[in-house]
Amino acid sequence: MADNAVEESSSNGRRKKVVLKETRLGLSHKKDEDFGKWYSEVLVNSEMIEYYDISGCYIIRDWAMMIWDIMKEFFEKEIGEMGVDKCMFPLFVSKSVLNKEKNHIAGFEPEVAWVTKAGKSDLEVEIAIRPTSETVIYPYFSKWIRNRHDLPKKVNQWCNVVRWEFSNPMPFIRSREFYWQEGHTAFATKEEADVEVLEILEIYRRIYEEFLAVPVIKGKKSELEKFAGALYTSSVEAFIPNTGRGIQGATSHCLGQNFSKKEFFDIKFHVEIEEDGKTKTDHVHVWQNSWAYSTRSIGVMVMVHGDEKGLVLPPKVAKWQVIVIPVPYRDANTQEIFDVCAATVKTLRKAGIRAEVDKRDHYTPGWKYSYWEMKGVPLRIEIGPKDLANNQIRAVRRDNGVKMDLSMVSLVEQVKELLGKIQESLFDSAKQRRDACIQIAATWDEFSEALRQKKLILAPWCDEEEVEKDVKNRTKGDTGAAKTLCTPFDQPEMLEGTKCFASGKPAKKWTYWGRSY
Amino acid sequence: MADNAVEESSSNGRRKKVVLKETRLGLSHKKDEDFGKWYSEVLVNSEMIEYYDISGCYIIRDWAMMIWDIMKEFFEKEIGEMGVDKCMFPLFVSKSVLNKEKNHIAGFEPEVAWVTKAGKSDLEVEIAIRPTSETVIYPYFSKWIRNRHDLPKKVNQWCNVVRWEFSNPMPFIRSREFYWQEGHTAFATKEEADVEVLEILEIYRRIYEEFLAVPVIKGKKSELEKFAGALYTSSVEAFIPNTGRGIQGATSHCLGQNFSKKEFFDIKFHVEIEEDGKTKTDHVHVWQNSWAYSTRSIGVMVMVHGDEKGLVLPPKVAKWQVIVIPVPYRDANTQEIFDVCAATVKTLRKAGIRAEVDKRDHYTPGWKYSYWEMKGVPLRIEIGPKDLANNQIRAVRRDNGVKMDLSMVSLVEQVKELLGKIQESLFDSAKQRRDACIQIAATWDEFSEALRQKKLILAPWCDEEEVEKDVKNRTKGDTGAAKTLCTPFDQPEMLEGTKCFASGKPAKKWTYWGRSY
Repeated sequence: MADNAVEESSSNGRRKKVVLKETRLGLSHKKDEDFGKWYSEVLVNSEMIEYYDISGCYIIRDWAMMIWDIMKEFFEKEIGEMGVDKCMFPLFVSKSVLNKEKNHIAGFEPEVAWVTKAGKSDLEVEIAIRPTSETVIYPYFSKWIRNRHDLPKKVNQWCNVVRWEFSNPMPFIRSREFYWQEGHTAFATKEEADVEVLEILEIYRRIYEEFLAVPVIKGKKSELEKFAGALYTSSVEAFIPNTGRGIQGATSHCLGQNFSKKEFFDIKFHVEIEEDGKTKTDHVHVWQNSWAYSTRSIGVMVMVHGDEKGLVLPPKVAKWQVIVIPVPYRDANTQEIFDVCAATVKTLRKAGIRAEVDKRDHYTPGWKYSYWEMKGVPLRIEIGPKDLANNQIRAVRRDNGVKMDLSMVSLVEQVKELLGKIQESLFDSAKQRRDACIQIAATWDEFSEALRQKKLILAPWCDEEEVEKDVKNRTKGDTGAAKTLCTPFDQPEMLEGTKCFASGKPAKKWTYWGRSY
Repeated sequence: MADNAVEESSSNGRRKKVVLKETRLGLSHKKDEDFGKWYSEVLVNSEMIEYYDISGCYIIRDWAMMIWDIMKEFFEKEIGEMGVDKCMFPLFVSKSVLNKEKNHIAGFEPEVAWVTKAGKSDLEVEIAIRPTSETVIYPYFSKWIRNRHDLPKKVNQWCNVVRWEFSNPMPFIRSREFYWQEGHTAFATKEEADVEVLEILEIYRRIYEEFLAVPVIKGKKSELEKFAGALYTSSVEAFIPNTGRGIQGATSHCLGQNFSKKEFFDIKFHVEIEEDGKTKTDHVHVWQNSWAYSTRSIGVMVMVHGDEKGLVLPPKVAKWQVIVIPVPYRDANTQEIFDVCAATVKTLRKAGIRAEVDKRDHYTPGWKYSYWEMKGVPLRIEIGPKDLANNQIRAVRRDNGVKMDLSMVSLVEQVKELLGKIQESLFDSAKQRRDACIQIAATWDEFSEALRQKKLILAPWCDEEEVEKDVKNRTKGDTGAAKTLCTPFDQPEMLEGTKCFASGKPAKKWTYWGRSY
């Protein structure tokens, strides 16, 4: 965008140039009208993403990397306190190891990318690129865990994984290579594993709700939707009102003893047991969890908060929380304005606020407003001659466009308060919109109508796999079949005699249903 | 190690157990006798590395990851201040793009890993895994850079790259997948690029000398040894006295206009020039740099400082700078000792010292001493009943084994000072050993003899590629040919009439030669 605007600057007059630039900075697609194109345009124009020449692969630029790094710092600290070790396991996994846990590999087989050649030579055995690292890591758990003292074992890595999906790639949301953290832990007892599943899920909730300002629902996946190889899967689920689709935000799996048992990775520790009055050495297979969240979270945030002017960033994850823009006037002392802008940034930074000044002199203030709105900076500060005279600044909120004059006295406190308000109000507004989409459906007719209306459907369910498959079959069409999103941990009361909306059998639980990404 | 020791604990008496454990914790290979096996044993026993079932791939464990992360934090801050943006470019590169710069690809061709299949389907076009990212990134530089205002353009990514080498893999030093940062920058002028090459090289020197306590030589690579596609390559070179081999520590390349020119990536910006009294628009191709350092740096540190007891970590990069070990006696108040240990750690941490207490109760103090010596923790603090009585602690330096009693009063200051001394003395001692290996060779005979003695050879050279090739040919044997390591920026005086040690032609510069990793 910027480039085109500058190219015209030499051949156009000042006034015309400004108009042209501001026009060019707008979005050509509307969120309400063509969501997919709007999403992609916002990502590219805000300089988060660049499309790459291999389909399904994307370039993540500084503006998005900063968000990822801020979340990473928080997550690292949290899991560090839980005693999780850092590690990096290899990108490659041999075929025999990948195939060890049958349910697990069945879930990934069609998506695995294979290296078969190096230089001009064919490899003797083809080698897989990790789609996830359970089978990469667990042979070493088996080596490292021998005794009760070696437990719990907890490792986490930040890495790229590859799932060569062939349909509908979408930046952040569905890409062939993506970045995530994956944690892998082993415990002596199921109870300890169960506790950790929820501890991690709570950190994921905090990342979505406290950092990205995106409301999520904590719950358990159905048998059909759980992770291949897991005993059970818990998740945080977000919802995109514009498309009426749920989206899995992060997952925390209890793998039970599925991977640790003898026929797979044989991960066990020795115990002494009493039998017939004698002490014997026996062994117990460990209980395992794995948990992950990915760059997908950034995409969800863009979808939830973005608007017709571009990206809207929650202050907590914005690289720049405040952008300061000098507004010189022909007769004013330009240098003084620039100096005050620089001093303001310095003051804000000293107070821990991520502030920057846009001191480029080849763009007009108006063009800069649009530029930083496109990039979603939470708060804009304008400083012109009038502001100088009155010892104030003009502040403009990105989330609701509200303008206000702030006195230079106690500026830091006012800005901090504003940023807090913006963060809160983004979450509240997103929650209101999400909640407005929740529809209770007691019968198949209500369910169908709610689905047609792109609702997030909460329905009583018999919890039978065949019934979920049946619902999928009955709803499949151009826009995709409906499926369970999760069974929320926070269960509404279930009145006696409540029937499953789909099968008419006695309902066992309330479950969220909908189309999904 | 730990596992084996514990397994025996139930069947052995206390005294015997200790002896057994201490024996088991030792290394079975000596640094002086079988360097390769010693290196590998230190890495595995200190829990930095685990060997993986695919040759040339390794698992990097917490103990090594922490070092990497500490260096990363420093490096990120330094390049952040230089205005370098974060990014993540894809792992994959299409064949046509990879092949664009001919010299460059010729250097990597035999090592490129190719993905040819996804699931059960053959890909239409095979796709390379990046061996480095020049060709991945530069098509987008071409897109993003249009005008003078878009320069300088600076990006950096932390990622994995793959070079499928077939010979002599070695953890950290030569592996098929490795981790690094790669910076890619573009400037309007050669002068700016030249300046940055050296700025980055200085950061690399600081990482080696100030963090890893490894002395390095800054210099320029020969034409034969420079990066494929570079105009010139600068590097920091370390030396391993035990094997008499140089090792390239990090490289900062000026790519000139090799990649930016029209026939390759056509990265240019527009300028207005005066010609025959008219203003015309022309374009200039950018000047580029790329620079990288990798996890190899950790291997170099292990090789330089490690000893017969295992790893020796410089305090600046140690996860734990201080390990506190409770030394309970049968009649003493064990709980009090453990409490004082915990309080000591708390005090040290509050002062910013990375301290930990080993409170495991299934190991003896003696076993713990060996364990933490193997892991190279710079300073051990022992606290027993006598120490309590005297309000002191016993401190033991890992680098030289010196023991001293420190008063609990002003403990923080004393520990800080000690850690500073250890850091300094590790560097000084390494530098002394490195310097003792430097040998000036004026003639071929002196050169051959110095090479036989595993020296780091400084020799006057005519700087001709054919002569370097000739030296390689004449020295090749079981232990590898000698080659240039670098031409140091810090050049000794060259007396008039000095001849090249190899060709007898007039010498142009002093250059370091030797065998290398």
